[in-house]
Amino acid sequence: MGPGPSNVYPEVTSALVRPVIGHLDPSFLTVLDETMERLRQVFKTENSLTLPLSGTGSAGMEAALVNFVEPGDPVVVAVNGLFGERMCEVARRIGAEVVRVEAGWGTPVDPEAVLSAHDSPKVIAVVHAETSTGVRNEIAPLGEGKKDALLVVDTVTSLGGIEVALDEWGVDIAYSGTQKCLGVPPGLSPISVSKRARDQLLPAPTSWYLDLNLLAKYMESKSVAGRVYHHSAPVSMVFALHAGLGVLLDDGLDETWKRHLECGRRLQDGLEALGLRLLADASCRLPQLTTVEVPRTLSSGLDEAECRRVLLDRYDIEIGSGVGPLAGKVWRIGCMGHTARLKNVDALLGALAEVLRR
Amino acid sequence: MGPGPSNVYPEVTSALVRPVIGHLDPSFLTVLDETMERLRQVFKTENSLTLPLSGTGSAGMEAALVNFVEPGDPVVVAVNGLFGERMCEVARRIGAEVVRVEAGWGTPVDPEAVLSAHDSPKVIAVVHAETSTGVRNEIAPLGEGKKDALLVVDTVTSLGGIEVALDEWGVDIAYSGTQKCLGVPPGLSPISVSKRARDQLLPAPTSWYLDLNLLAKYMESKSVAGRVYHHSAPVSMVFALHAGLGVLLDDGLDETWKRHLECGRRLQDGLEALGLRLLADASCRLPQLTTVEVPRTLSSGLDEAECRRVLLDRYDIEIGSGVGPLAGKVWRIGCMGHTARLKNVDALLGALAEVLRR
Repeated sequence: MGPGPSNVYPEVTSALVRPVIGHLDPSFLTVLDETMERLRQVFKTENSLTLPLSGTGSAGMEAALVNFVEPGDPVVVAVNGLFGERMCEVARRIGAEVVRVEAGWGTPVDPEAVLSAHDSPKVIAVVHAETSTGVRNEIAPLGEGKKDALLVVDTVTSLGGIEVALDEWGVDIAYSGTQKCLGVPPGLSPISVSKRARDQLLPAPTSWYLDLNLLAKYMESKSVAGRVYHHSAPVSMVFALHAGLGVLLDDGLDETWKRHLECGRRLQDGLEALGLRLLADASCRLPQLTTVEVPRTLSSGLDEAECRRVLLDRYDIEIGSGVGPLAGKVWRIGCMGHTARLKNVDALLGALAEVLRR
Repeated sequence: MGPGPSNVYPEVTSALVRPVIGHLDPSFLTVLDETMERLRQVFKTENSLTLPLSGTGSAGMEAALVNFVEPGDPVVVAVNGLFGERMCEVARRIGAEVVRVEAGWGTPVDPEAVLSAHDSPKVIAVVHAETSTGVRNEIAPLGEGKKDALLVVDTVTSLGGIEVALDEWGVDIAYSGTQKCLGVPPGLSPISVSKRARDQLLPAPTSWYLDLNLLAKYMESKSVAGRVYHHSAPVSMVFALHAGLGVLLDDGLDETWKRHLECGRRLQDGLEALGLRLLADASCRLPQLTTVEVPRTLSSGLDEAECRRVLLDRYDIEIGSGVGPLAGKVWRIGCMGHTARLKNVDALLGALAEVLRR
C-alpha cells in the first residue's frame, strides 16, 4: 500500500509466466495489437499511436518530451510536486527553455496561471495525479486553452484509477506506468500520441531508444512483413500488461474507478477517525493515493520511519514516506490496482491504530 | 531458437511470479545487491558501477554512449553488422563525430584498423558478438591499444555464452541484454562501468532516464536510508534476472560456456551435414548464434520465409531471418540460455531435414 508498485491481479501473474516467444512471432504480435487496442480504451482515445514503451513511467516522461522538444523550445511545466519537478529536469536536459508555474505541495495548479505563463509554448506539461502529494490537477481547462501548444500529461498514477479521457480533454501526449492502478508489475510505460502531435514528431530525436517514429514502425503495422524490428520487445511484461488491461476492461472502467473511489473514501474517513489530518483538500484529493500528515508526537515513541518499519515487519504492509519538502512529514498510502480492496483498507487501518497506540 | 529471446530457465519462471514488493523494500534491495554482485561475476569485473538498467539491450547501448559522449566528440565504431550500424546511429543522434571502421557482414573487424582510425577518439565502440552475422570480434587487442579512449563493448549476445572478461580485456563500459545467453525474458540491460570511465561520466547527460549518476545513487548505496529514489525499478524482472544469474553461477561460468560450445558445434556440424553453408569462418564463429546460408533452390518449392513458418507452425521452433544485406539470404539460429540443450539442436536438425526434403 505504498505509492506503487501495487499488488498485481492474479491473471497478470499467470500471464507473466507464459512461454517467452519471439517479438516477431505472429502470436505475440496479436497480443501486442490487442494490448494497444486495450490501451486506447483505457486512455479513452482513438489515437493510433498508442503503445507500451519498454521502460518505466519515467521513460514515458522522457519520450513524451524528447520526441517533440528541441533545444530552445519554450516548455511550460506545472509544478506542485516531485513529478512536476522531474518534468522540468527532463525538459532542461533536452535543452528546453523551461517556464515553471508553481503551486504548493498539496494544492492543485491553477490552469489559468499555466495558460498565461507564456505566449506560445511548444509544450504545456502537467501531472494529472501527483504521486508525491495525492493531489489531482485539472486537465480539461488546459486542453481547452492550449492554443498551438502540445499538451503533455503524466497519467502514471491516474490511469485506471480515476477518469482519464484523452480525446475529450484535448490531451496530445499522455504516458503512464503499469505498476499503479493497472495492477501490473513495473517495467512498461503506456504512451499515446494525438494525430496533431504526431505531425510534429521530430524526425530524429536525440534518443534512439525512445524514438516514436521507429517504435511505430515496429508496433503499429498490421502485417508481419510490414513490421520493422526496433528492439527486443519485453514479451513477458507485454503479456502481463495485456492481462491486466483485460481484467480492468472486463470489470469495466466505471466499475474500476468506483472501486478505487470506495477504497479511497473508506481509507480517508478511517484516517480522520484515527485523528490524523489529510494533506490534500477534498476538492482535489485522489482516492488512489492518500497523503496523511504524520502526528507530531506518537505515544509509542516511534518516529515515522519506525512506524513504517513496524507496519512492514509485523503486518506485511508497506506504506510510503514523504518526499521533497514533505519528507518526514507525511505518509503516502496507495490503494491501486489489485490492492484497491476494502479488506486491505481495513487491514491497514487496524494495523495503523495498533502502531499509533503502542 | 531465433536470435533471441531464448527459452528461460525454470528457476526464472518461478522468480517472475514472486509477489511484487516496493523498490525501497529492504528485502528487494537485498535481491538487487545480490543481482549486482552476480553481474560482476558474470562480467568478470570488480567494477562497483555494475547494475541492471530498466530497458532492453538497446537502452544499454544508448546509456553506454549518452553518459560519456558530448556533441562533437570523436567516436570510432567498428561496423560489421546491424548492431555496429546501430551504435553509429545512436552516437550520431547524440551529436558525436562518428568514425566508421567497416568489415563485411560475416567477417570480423580488424583491431589494428579500429585503433588507427583516429588519433584521439573519446570512445572506441565495438560489438563483441554480432547477432546479425554470428561473428565474434576480438576485444582484448582493443583494450591493449586504446590509449586514452574509453572502450565500449556490446555484450548482448556474448554474456553468459562465451567468455567475457571486462577487467582482463581493459573494457571500460559493457552492456548486455537478459534475453540471450542469460536465459531470462527481455526487458533489462546489465551494464558495467570501469573506475576510469566513471571518472568521465557526464554530470548531466541529455537522458535523465539513463543517467548513470542518478542510477548509482539508487542502486549502489548499501544503506536503505542512503538510497535515492530514481524510478520505479522493475522488481519482477530483477527477481527474474537474479534467478537466471543464480542458475548460471551454480552451473559455473566454464560449464555454461562449454554447454553453449557443445550445442553450437553439434548444430553447425549438423547443418553442414545437411549440405548447408555457414556464413562465418570457423575462426570467428559464435557457438550461440549461427548464421547459415539459405539454399538457392529448395526441392520443396518453399521460399525462406515459408520454411521458417513451417518450422514454427508444425514443429513449434522459431528460427530468425537475415537482416540488412543478409535479408532473404541467411537464417539465424540461436542456441542460448536454457535453449542451449543438445535435445533442442537435434529437434531442429531433424525438423529442418524434413522441411528441406519436402
